[in-house]
Order: sequence, then structure tokens, then C-alpha cells
Amino acid sequence: MGPIQINQILKSAEVGQPVEIKAWVRTKRESKNAIFISLNDGSTLHNIQAVAEPGQFPESTLRLITTGACLKVTGTLVESLGSGQAVEVKMQDVLIYGTADPEDYPLQPKKHSLEFLREIAHLRPRTNTFSAILRIRHALAFAVHKYYNDNGFFYLHTPIITASDAEGAGEMFRVTTLDAGEPPRDETGKVDYKEDFFGREANLTVSGQLEGELGALALSKIYTFGPTFRAENSNTTRHLAEFWMIEPEMAFFDLNDNMDLAEDFVKYVIRYALDNCVDDLEFLEKRQAEEEKSKPQAERSMPLTEKLRFVVDNPFERLTYTEAIKILENSKPHKQKKFQYHVEWGVDLQSEHERYLVEKHFKKPVILTNYPRSIKSFYMKVDEASDAAPAPTVRAMDVLFPGIGEIIGGSQREENYDVLLERVHEVGIDPDIIWWYLETRKFGTAPHSGFGLGFERLVQFVTGMGNIRDVIPFPRYPKSAEF
Amino acid sequence: MGPIQINQILKSAEVGQPVEIKAWVRTKRESKNAIFISLNDGSTLHNIQAVAEPGQFPESTLRLITTGACLKVTGTLVESLGSGQAVEVKMQDVLIYGTADPEDYPLQPKKHSLEFLREIAHLRPRTNTFSAILRIRHALAFAVHKYYNDNGFFYLHTPIITASDAEGAGEMFRVTTLDAGEPPRDETGKVDYKEDFFGREANLTVSGQLEGELGALALSKIYTFGPTFRAENSNTTRHLAEFWMIEPEMAFFDLNDNMDLAEDFVKYVIRYALDNCVDDLEFLEKRQAEEEKSKPQAERSMPLTEKLRFVVDNPFERLTYTEAIKILENSKPHKQKKFQYHVEWGVDLQSEHERYLVEKHFKKPVILTNYPRSIKSFYMKVDEASDAAPAPTVRAMDVLFPGIGEIIGGSQREENYDVLLERVHEVGIDPDIIWWYLETRKFGTAPHSGFGLGFERLVQFVTGMGNIRDVIPFPRYPKSAEF
Repeated sequence: MGPIQINQILKSAEVGQPVEIKAWVRTKRESKNAIFISLNDGSTLHNIQAVAEPGQFPESTLRLITTGACLKVTGTLVESLGSGQAVEVKMQDVLIYGTADPEDYPLQPKKHSLEFLREIAHLRPRTNTFSAILRIRHALAFAVHKYYNDNGFFYLHTPIITASDAEGAGEMFRVTTLDAGEPPRDETGKVDYKEDFFGREANLTVSGQLEGELGALALSKIYTFGPTFRAENSNTTRHLAEFWMIEPEMAFFDLNDNMDLAEDFVKYVIRYALDNCVDDLEFLEKRQAEEEKSKPQAERSMPLTEKLRFVVDNPFERLTYTEAIKILENSKPHKQKKFQYHVEWGVDLQSEHERYLVEKHFKKPVILTNYPRSIKSFYMKVDEASDAAPAPTVRAMDVLFPGIGEIIGGSQREENYDVLLERVHEVGIDPDIIWWYLETRKFGTAPHSGFGLGFERLVQFVTGMGNIRDVIPFPRYPKSAEF
Repeated sequence: MGPIQINQILKSAEVGQPVEIKAWVRTKRESKNAIFISLNDGSTLHNIQAVAEPGQFPESTLRLITTGACLKVTGTLVESLGSGQAVEVKMQDVLIYGTADPEDYPLQPKKHSLEFLREIAHLRPRTNTFSAILRIRHALAFAVHKYYNDNGFFYLHTPIITASDAEGAGEMFRVTTLDAGEPPRDETGKVDYKEDFFGREANLTVSGQLEGELGALALSKIYTFGPTFRAENSNTTRHLAEFWMIEPEMAFFDLNDNMDLAEDFVKYVIRYALDNCVDDLEFLEKRQAEEEKSKPQAERSMPLTEKLRFVVDNPFERLTYTEAIKILENSKPHKQKKFQYHVEWGVDLQSEHERYLVEKHFKKPVILTNYPRSIKSFYMKVDEASDAAPAPTVRAMDVLFPGIGEIIGGSQREENYDVLLERVHEVGIDPDIIWWYLETRKFGTAPHSGFGLGFERLVQFVTGMGNIRDVIPFPRYPKSAEF
């Protein structure tokens, strides 16, 4: 059903056959001997060229065939005489579905800035850059589902609206149906959330992990892939208010199994993109080279596909936080006081430290483990005391990638009820809010692990795009919920 | 990585081999000659039986092996002498990861009501019924992605937080970071949403369709699969405040292509479940028969897998709303005044009418088309005037299924700018709110179509579960956002 698409025609249609193409005009060019119309339907980066003879169509029709117009072209597939394509369409007929007045249509065939394109996010998927990004995003998402399905995981839809901010992962959005101007109030004058839709204060989730663990402690291996939210007022190239996360949780996995899975998984999805998005990656690679050509050689990125192949082909370096601190303390930038932030055991690593480890010291992705307990979440399994570290550590792991830093954060989870409850009290969470989470440690508790991958960070890494707002169709950030 | 799972052992492990199983105790039974422990790890409906000799383990250990406890069992895979399983594990060693005190653990081996299980949604995936439902839910979700990927669609993540209630599909949840008790106010005393996170009032999406159309008018074929929300105070077995929708949108598809796709798609995913969830469907079929055995024969449902095969094997009946009204007006229940709601051209069909058409008249799934314009959404393509219908109609389609009624709703979309704008004004939407949607009809507009499938309705249909709260892991409904 539906028309044959350009990617199919370019792949398999035979010269001499009749074709009917429904697509948008990218460019039109008229020469003395022919009129060339480049058509694209979004199924592929490549256009197909339709060729008409001068005088074949009335001027009143040709005038409407401008960049952005939508056409049905019927004709015959013929060998192309021009360079750059094997086949083209000899036009017999054309129907104009929709015009695009060149005076108004903002996507003319010239370079547009990414900032400008963000303002017309409803149209930017019609550009080469954004259609390539969206096709790659699709391929990565499909690879995620395929990987987990093939490996015996069950996709679990954890709730989006939640009444527990157990993770303390950040500022949350409130979800409400109360009258904003005149909310009901209790006898003390406070807003009475008992009257709200859910009978209590509710928020948008910051993570599906806690509910994911409930699934893993019944089905053994689950994963989530859904939207998560942060109401943080950060206008950076790395943060969105609404983004998609992938969170696998596995019963009976210890920290080593967790690292093995994270590495295998992220390599699989990147390899899937390398195998299935050849043209789009090549296009983005050229785009990046073009963007960076004014930079000095030393500051340019590794070519995109080379960078991806490098990640896929090399084992990630694994070391403890404590070992990493030693390396950083002995590093040149530390000794020469080039790091902006101080490094010593106990501090949270900054981007500059992570990048030093990944890009300068090891020159490959790094997994750091066994972080100080004091800087990590309450649900991470506390390590047994060891002489190696000066203070208690937890079985956390962060996967660090070149260019973007932390792409995966995870841990073995604390499965001991008493230890977990102590940590809950320590960090000031009300145990009554997460009674159901605590109960899983009372009833058939099991060692288990999991991690979270920010999907947009992954898409950024694979596409090489610098701004996270450019790898999601309709980005949400402070003061912006357009489209 | 991770342990071998019970479904793999039952499928392929060879008798005589050593095995290590990590799983939860379903039941323990002691006889004179042996101790039998049924273990389940959620990978399959089936348990594996571990067998120990009396006296092999100390009483203090055996006492802790109760329903719900989590164990690591090592032993040898041997042929089973008992009935009901081909193999079992001769135990050599056991490690207890977690106990489950029978005094406290609510999931004892007896029948629990679905209502009770909803109160312990954190534990119910450990039951046969809910693990079967969640495995089927996973299989259906994977089939959705596989179908669209295989057919050249791109998965588009449409926004969850939106500033446009263009669809008018229902009550919305407000998303805010304003102080609930003391919101900022403008000079007129109204809540000043300019101060809110997004600089305007924002809500949770009721549908990704409008943004989906933006994708289709660039990439040709896209689909969404994400959460959607309704803040309706309905406590029914068919409604959730948070549910997942699948919404494909296709450029160049007319209503017939749309129907072809809907039928092919829904048959594909049901067939996928039939092929990949044999044991779980069989279990739920027996469960349903058990539930209904007190009902008179005539009121019992068709056996579950028979019902599914019936849908997969037969072409759906397609007719217009106008034709359906005639059938209903000539029907026995209408003439005998048995319908609760009045039927005449122009009314919205009620569940009783839909069920009559599907279950009594055609005895198969039905697609109704060309509904009165007055009862359908503004974005549906207006039909050309025809003598068949007494008033204007639109190219809508509803797919009706036995038992659950409407499972898919869709339409060809209005691609004509002027007609669409008129409809927008007619229904009272502010065109400035959806300027981006309207612009796609100004720039390269194209005939296009799409539909929406409520994922939980599909899971209900395939699992035969009566209450929609039982087919999503953690249901959200009025006064309930637990877990």
C-alpha cells in the first residue's frame, strides 16, 4: 500500500520500467535541452532526478514547480547521462499536489543555520541534515529494541506520572488538574493536593529505574525506553527538559555483568547504525568536516565513522574511581594547574577530568567504577570496606565517551534491606513513599544491577551533532514548548 | 552475561549437564522420598523443578525455602520422573539470596483477586497471570516496532509536553513549575504563565498526531509509540489517565491505503503474538474459561486463541457510517427498542451499536468510514458532497473489534489549507497556536492519512483481560499514582 519510495527505486527498480514518484522538489534546474527536477521523499538522503523536455509542460505548470512543492511524477526509469546518479526518470506527466511559494517558503536551497532551523522545527525534517539525523535516530531506536528482544529482555512501560521523587535526580515538573489561580486549600491554608487528580502531589518521572527494578525482580531482565523529565533551568547544548532514556535492569547481574552488558549493548547499536545508515553517516561526516575546516588541525574531531568504528572495535578501559584519581593527580594538566576544578579523592569528576581520561590518557571509552558512596545515589550497592579506598565506595559505573563524557550511568543495586533502609534515612527520603521499593528487599531479594542511557546523548554521539536540541524532533527547554 | 534462564534450559539444555539456576520459589512440596521445589525466573510461564533428597540439606536451610524466596540452585539436569515436565534439576547445592516470610509475603500459592493484586502492583508480575500479560505486552510492542521498521516507517518521538490542545481530544494535565500556593500573577490578577518553565501554559499531550503529520510531510512514513494522557475522571475498565498510543502517519496514503495499512498492521502484531506467545496465550485462555465457567454457554467468550486466529484469518468488513446506520435501523434490537441509545444518521455510535455490527451482524472486525463531519475532528478530510449521505461527511475510519469496540481511529487528513482553516475557525481553535500545523498545508501540501491505536486496548484484546488496569504495569487513574 502507498507509493513505491525513492530508496526502493534506487535500490531495485529496473531501467525501462514505468514509475510513479510522489515526493517534494529539492531543486529545479533548466538548461537549453532539458529541465531537471530533483525529488526527495525522505526515505533516503538521495534525490531522484526527473527530466522533462523544454516545452513538454506548459509554463504555468513549470512555474509552480519550485523548491518545496509536492509532486506526483509519472514516467520511465532510464539510465542517467549525468554524473552522480545511475538512473533518472524521463517524465511523462506531472501532478502538483502542493505548491511552495518561493517568496514565503523558508527552506530555499542555501545554507541555513541550525539556530534558524530550530525556529522552524516543523519544516527542518525536510532538510538533508535533519532527515539524516531522524533516520539515524530511528535506526538506533530500533536497534535498542532488537538488542533487548534478542537477548531475552522484556520491554516494561514504567509510569510517566509519579508520586515519588525517590531518586532525587533533579527538579521535577508538577502534574496537576487543580485550578491554578484558586487552588483548594486545607485548613492550614496550604494547597490541598487531596483534591488533585491523583489525590496527592504528582510529578513527571525523572527515571523509570525504581519501577524497572520491580520488573527485574519478577521477570529477571527488563528494559525501559521512555520519556523522562528535568525541570532544570539549564540552557546548555547537553540538556533537555524532556528526553528519552533507556534503562535495563537485570536480576542476578553483578557489576561486572552490568559492565559487560553496557559495553556489548552500546557497541551493538552503534554497529547497527554503521551497517544500516551508511549514506546518512557519510553525509554527516562530510558536514562535520565542512563545519570544522576553519579550525586548526589539532582541534578537529576524528572523522565521524572512524570515531564510531573505533568505539565498536576496541575494548573499553575499566578502572576504579580510586585508580582514576591517581592517574589524574599524576597528570600533566593537574601538575601544571591546567584543570579548572580541583581533583582529589571524594570529589565528583568534572567533564575536563573525564575527557582527559578518555581522550588523552586511554584514548578510548572508559568505564569508571566504585565511586565514593558520598557522591552517589542511595540505591547503589555499598562495597565492602577495602584498603584501596580512603572512604566507603559503591558499586557504581559510569561509561565515558569521547566528546560527550558520561553516556551511561549505572550500578549494582543495594539488595540488602537493612543497608538500603539506612541509606534511605541517611539521604532523607521518606520510606513510606517508596514502601513498595523497600518491600522487594524483604521478599525474595536478589543481587541485581542496571544502568541508564540518555538516548539523545547517544544520537548526538552517533550523528556528531554538537547541540542536543538538534537530535530530537521537537526539543523542550526553558521558555520553549513550541510545536 | 548473566545466568542461563529457565526458558533456555527447557528449550535446549541436555540431560546430564550441570546447571545453575537463579530464580524464585513458586512452591515447595515435601514427600517421604524427596523435596520438590518449583522455580520460576519470569523468562517463561513454566517452572523448573529442583529435587533434593530428604536430609540432603539442613532443616534450617529448608525452612527458609518458601514461596517467594530467591535461590541459586546448582545441580544436574535429569529426566523427570514426574508428569508435566520433561526435565528437572537434581540438586547439589543451594544458596538463599532472599527469604520471603510466609507470615508477611502476600503472594501465597492460592487464588488472589485481580483487585487485591492491583494493590500490590510491585509484586504482581511474580504471578503467572501478570508475567504472562507482561511477556505478551512486550511481544506486541516489539512486533509494532518490527512491523513499521520492516515497512519503511521511521519512529518519531513526538513531544510529551505540549503547549497546544489542538485536538480537543479531552481534558488535559497541566505541567508546571510555578509555586502552587503563591503563583505569580499579572497585573489583572491572573496566573502569569510567562513566569512558568516554558514561558506559557503547558500540558501533557493527548496525541502525537499533529506533530506526526509534520514528520510524514518530510519523511513520508512515520509512526509514534509513546505515552498519552487524559485527565478525565472516568473510573471504568476501559480508561486510563496515562496510556500508550501508536500513531502512524503517511504521506500519499488515501483512506483506502489507510484501511489497508490498519488491517495489515493489526493482523501482523496479533499473528506475532500467536506465533511467539504460545504458552502464555494458552494459559490466559484457560484462565478465561475458568473465570467464565459459571456463565451460561451463550454469554461465554470465544476461546482466546480462536478469537485471535479468527481476526487474523478473515478480511475486515468495510462499510460507510451511512450504510451502518441503515443496518442498525433495520436491526431487531432497534425495532424492538432494545438499544439504550437512539440511532439515526448524525449520532455518534454507542458501544451497543458497534458491538451489534461486529458481534451479531457481520461476526467479524468492521471498519466504518465516512462519518458525519459534525461528530469528528477538525483535521479530517471533508468528503465531496454525495447523495448517499444527508449531510457532509469526512474521510474517517474506525476499526471495531469484538468485545472491546473501537480499537483504531483514523482518517485521511485535510490537506487543503483553506478548508482546514475554515474548520479550525468553525471548531474554535486559535490558528496562532497551531501556525506550524497550518503551514504544512501552505508549503508542499500532500494527501496524507494516519490512525491511532490505543496500545492497552490491543493488549486487552490479545490477553482477554477485562480491566485495562491489568494490562499496564503501574496503572494511573483518578486518585491513584502509587508505585
